This record gives sequence, structure tokens and C-alpha cells, in this order.
Amino acid sequence: MKFDEFYMQLALNEAWKYQGLTYPNPAVGAVLVEEGKLLSVAAHQKAGTSHAEVLVLIAAYEAKSGQKVGFDPKNAQMSHDFLLKLPPNFFAQCTIYVTLEPCSHQGKTPSCASLISRLQLQRTVIATRDPIKGHDGGIEMLENVTFGVLREKAERLLGPFKIWQKRAFVLFKVAQTSNGRIGGGYLSSKASLHHVHQLREVCDTLVIGGNTVREDRPTLDCRFTRGKAPDVKIYSRKENFDREIPLFKVEGRDVEITDDLSFLERPSFVLVEGGEGMLREMQKQIDWLLFYQTPKLSTNALSYNIDMNLEFLHTESMDVDMMIWSRQIGY
Amino acid sequence: MKFDEFYMQLALNEAWKYQGLTYPNPAVGAVLVEEGKLLSVAAHQKAGTSHAEVLVLIAAYEAKSGQKVGFDPKNAQMSHDFLLKLPPNFFAQCTIYVTLEPCSHQGKTPSCASLISRLQLQRTVIATRDPIKGHDGGIEMLENVTFGVLREKAERLLGPFKIWQKRAFVLFKVAQTSNGRIGGGYLSSKASLHHVHQLREVCDTLVIGGNTVREDRPTLDCRFTRGKAPDVKIYSRKENFDREIPLFKVEGRDVEITDDLSFLERPSFVLVEGGEGMLREMQKQIDWLLFYQTPKLSTNALSYNIDMNLEFLHTESMDVDMMIWSRQIGY
Repeated sequence: MKFDEFYMQLALNEAWKYQGLTYPNPAVGAVLVEEGKLLSVAAHQKAGTSHAEVLVLIAAYEAKSGQKVGFDPKNAQMSHDFLLKLPPNFFAQCTIYVTLEPCSHQGKTPSCASLISRLQLQRTVIATRDPIKGHDGGIEMLENVTFGVLREKAERLLGPFKIWQKRAFVLFKVAQTSNGRIGGGYLSSKASLHHVHQLREVCDTLVIGGNTVREDRPTLDCRFTRGKAPDVKIYSRKENFDREIPLFKVEGRDVEITDDLSFLERPSFVLVEGGEGMLREMQKQIDWLLFYQTPKLSTNALSYNIDMNLEFLHTESMDVDMMIWSRQIGY
Repeated sequence: MKFDEFYMQLALNEAWKYQGLTYPNPAVGAVLVEEGKLLSVAAHQKAGTSHAEVLVLIAAYEAKSGQKVGFDPKNAQMSHDFLLKLPPNFFAQCTIYVTLEPCSHQGKTPSCASLISRLQLQRTVIATRDPIKGHDGGIEMLENVTFGVLREKAERLLGPFKIWQKRAFVLFKVAQTSNGRIGGGYLSSKASLHHVHQLREVCDTLVIGGNTVREDRPTLDCRFTRGKAPDVKIYSRKENFDREIPLFKVEGRDVEITDDLSFLERPSFVLVEGGEGMLREMQKQIDWLLFYQTPKLSTNALSYNIDMNLEFLHTESMDVDMMIWSRQIGY
């Protein structure tokens, strides 16, 4: 077995669980192994909370000591403080696997590269470089680094992050049966719906088609996560919408009706929901498609009748559903 | 982390790679861990070759010693002989994870339960019992057994095996785009086609619809695996087929044209390939569906326009495609 690749794959799998949800940060996963023994697996979950390296170190402490830390490990400051007070050799026999170069950037907390260096880990295995100038250079702060393990897969994981540095990352959501049918009531498991609402909460803008607004009269809020509903742009040439449609009445939300897509030039995270018309209108702009595929075949007539070439990136179970991350290619 | 569940999940994942291909044996996976350190992962691959336990022990020997054994580990007799000649404490600190109770049945080689017992492994973790009377009882031959880890998932893996003990296990193959369209030339990656041919080679009977035979004029052989082409039953009420259609000309194959499905009462493995009509005709008989899903959306008009409730069981990458094992429920 190629153990470096095996553990890096675990780190990648964990990171994919939070793909998109870490916006504007990248999805990053980490694994800690002591003398060949797996101690912990973790991923960065949400901007403003602990990085993957910190979470995996705290979880490794808990595994080694058999004790829970008395605070929330997602609190970066408390976690850093705690880790730096451990006996100097606590992680001396440990190897950390990280899908992305640990940050060199010193903010409110020490950088992850500096943390790993001060904790004197035996070895650091890194899949790929941080693409942001000023955040990279973590590798140079570390000793005994193995670089480039599953680099290509790590680059794929970083795709959205690299795009939203320079323009909008556009993710089109598909909820369909296993024979590609859409509509006809709720299609998805609660876990899938919860995940959609998490994405809505974290994105900058939700784009929706005019026909979907008129026909489905949606709310498009984040009620399953009790989060703030996203600002909505209705992609339409006409302004004549019934303002009694629930989406207009969600508090604290901006709604704009527009057929101007120039806002996509701005670095941001844009989620698109809609039917075939919307997919067709925005095909040129769409970077990734996220399928929530439900385990049934249906005779409902609607589907996305369009030609498109994709690359599958990752699959995840969402309760009974399957979630498939894919990238548009050749456009 | 729950390490027993983690390692059992690895064993299950490995076993799924050979689902169906082990016929008439069950799909079984195994993992070997020494003092918390992962040594090897393996699965039974083909009837008549080494069981998962034997393969994982040989691979663990190779990992520990850094040396390759000088024979094919799939040779059960040589592998057993080799393992029994190792120093008595070679695996004394090891835990073996097996998705199915090790066999108690002594055939040409010692049973796996007896092998594990003689090698004096520290602990054996087993997901579920062998459902065959006469093959079970392996647990009782072992000391220090942890039983029932991920049992439900292991039972799902065993589904086909349990069915083909008493009647035909009927697997319907679907090759489709990500929006559920079928037909229009080759849809699948070479890896997917290779896998279909492996299934054709191992199954007892390939059932195909009369319309598919007339319209597609298929060969239905195993050219990608250079294996023996399966016997074919054409499900049709009419006998008037053009005997120039290639499937009739494959050497060493029986072809029968019939609308009598009573052969499904016999314990066997039956693969079904066909379009919507065939799926509809055999819906009552179909146990599982295997999707080869290709990463594109297409405007080809054909699809399986039918209502069916499924349960997703496992997903596997097949080069650029995705392979989805699913079970029909509520029928």
C-alpha cells in the first residue's frame, strides 16, 4: 500500500464534505498519523473557524490523551493557545497530511505553518501549494516536508477557490431522479435540502430563472439551517412579477430583476437554481454542477434536455440521496 | 474516531469492487491492522482463488517484511502453506477485520477460521455471520472476536449472495448519461465496458429484449476480457430473428428465444440488458440495478420512462464514469 496516498485521500474525502461551505476560504482536509497509526481526520468547515490543521491536531490530542478539550475546537484562538501549551514532544512522532500548504499568514492566531513548526511534528505531507501570493510560503517554514502527494486531486478540490479569487464561481444546482427527471414535488432527502440551504446561506448571490419564480413561487430561504436568506437575482427581461411570491417577502434580502450578467465578473460565489431554460441561458457561465440524485426512477416529464460535457469530481452520500460534484468541460 | 468501524468500512469498500464478480461466492473484504497501524486491505476477487482473509494476510506479510512472496497470492493452497510456515508470533499483534465470518468449512485448503486461529492473531473483528449452514461456525473456532461491526452494511453487501442461494439474482444493467438518456452509441468508459464484460463472463445467463436484438444487432460477448461469452435468453414471444445478428454466431454459446421466465426460480446469477420495454417487462423480477453513469448531459431522446423506487448501495469510480449499485425496493 502507498500509505502517503492513502492518508492524503482520507484528508481529501473529508475536505469534500465542506466543499463550497468554507467560502471564501478553500476546502482543506487534514489527517494525523503517529508511528503509522491513524489518530484523527478533520476538515476546515467554515470561514472564521479553525483551519483543518488545528482541528486535526486537537482531535489527535483527544485520541492520544483520551480526554476531550474543554472548549469548542472550531475556536481558532483557544485551539492555538491550547496546542502551544502541550509538552514539547507531544506530537514528535506524528506526521500531518494536509491537502493544501499550511498558511504562512499570521493573523489573529499564529499561522498553521508556524504552529506545525513549533509543535515539532516529525513530517508534513502536503498535496499542493496555496495559490494565493502572501498566503503561500508555508512550506519554506517547515522541515521534513513531503510535497505533491495526490496533487492533481487536491487541485480539483481547490477549483472553486481558485476561480472566486478572480471572478464569480458559478455553481448550478440540479435535484433529479436517477433517470434525470426533475420537478413533481420535493425530490430530495432532508440531508440534501439541508445542504442546499447551507450553500444558499454561504453564497453571495442566488440566481434564479424568471419562469421558476412565476411557476414555483418559491421562498428560497434557509429555513432548514435557520440562516440568513441569500440575496436573489431573478434572471429575466421582464419586471412583471407578482410581489406576493414568497421570495420577495423574506426579511433582510435584496431582490433584483435583471438580465445583465456582468456581476459575474466580480470575485464571488454564485449559486444558480432553475430549470432547463436557466441552464441553457447560463451554460457559458456555469463552472460546476452539483447533482442531488434521488434513488428512484420517475415518469415525470421534465428533465434537463441539453448537451453538456462534465467531469465527475466527487460523490457523497446525503442520507438516501447521492450528491455528485461535477465540472463543466469543453466550454 | 471509531477505529473498528473505520477499518471495517475500508474492508467493505474493497469488497464492493468485486461485487457480482465473485459469483457463486460472496463478496468479502478484509483489512489487517498491527498495533493500530494499517498493514493491508484486500478482497476476494474470483471463485476458486484465495479468500479475502488469505489475501490480506499475504499482503500484510509483504508490508511487514518488505518482501514480495514468490507466487501468486490468489493461489489459495500456496498461500495457506506459506502462511502456516511463518514464525508463530508473526501476526501476534495483529487485528483482522473481515466483512463476513471466516469460513469454517475445510476443503482443499484449511478453513479461514482455522488459519486465523493457527496464526494466533490478537483479535478478529467480524461484521456479520455466514448465512450458509455448514459454512458458518467460524466464529466459534476463534478467540477474542468482536462481532457485529457495521453489520447492516455487510448484510447489504451480501444481498446478491443470499438471493442466489435460493433463486436467480436478477441484475439489470443501465448505461446512461447524467440526465438519464440512453442509446446513441457507446456511452461508457472503457473501464465500464470492461466491467460489464466481467459480469457477462461470470453470470449464468444474459437476458436481452427482442427489440434490442432486432434494433441494435449486438454481439454480447466478452471481448474486452477475452472471456467466454454468456449463454443468452432473448425474451420474446416471436421466434423470427435474423440469424445473421452477431450474437447468434458467438462460439460455444447457447441462445434461447423464450417468454418463459420460470428459469429464474433456479439459484443462479442473471444479468439483464435492454431498454425501457425490457425493464418494464421484468420489473417484478429485478432485484438490483447497476448504473454506469457517464459525465455528460445529452439531448438523445431515449430514457427509462418508468416509476421505480431504489436504494443506493454503493458508488464506485470507473475511470471517468460512475458505477452505482442500487436495490429495487417496495416491489
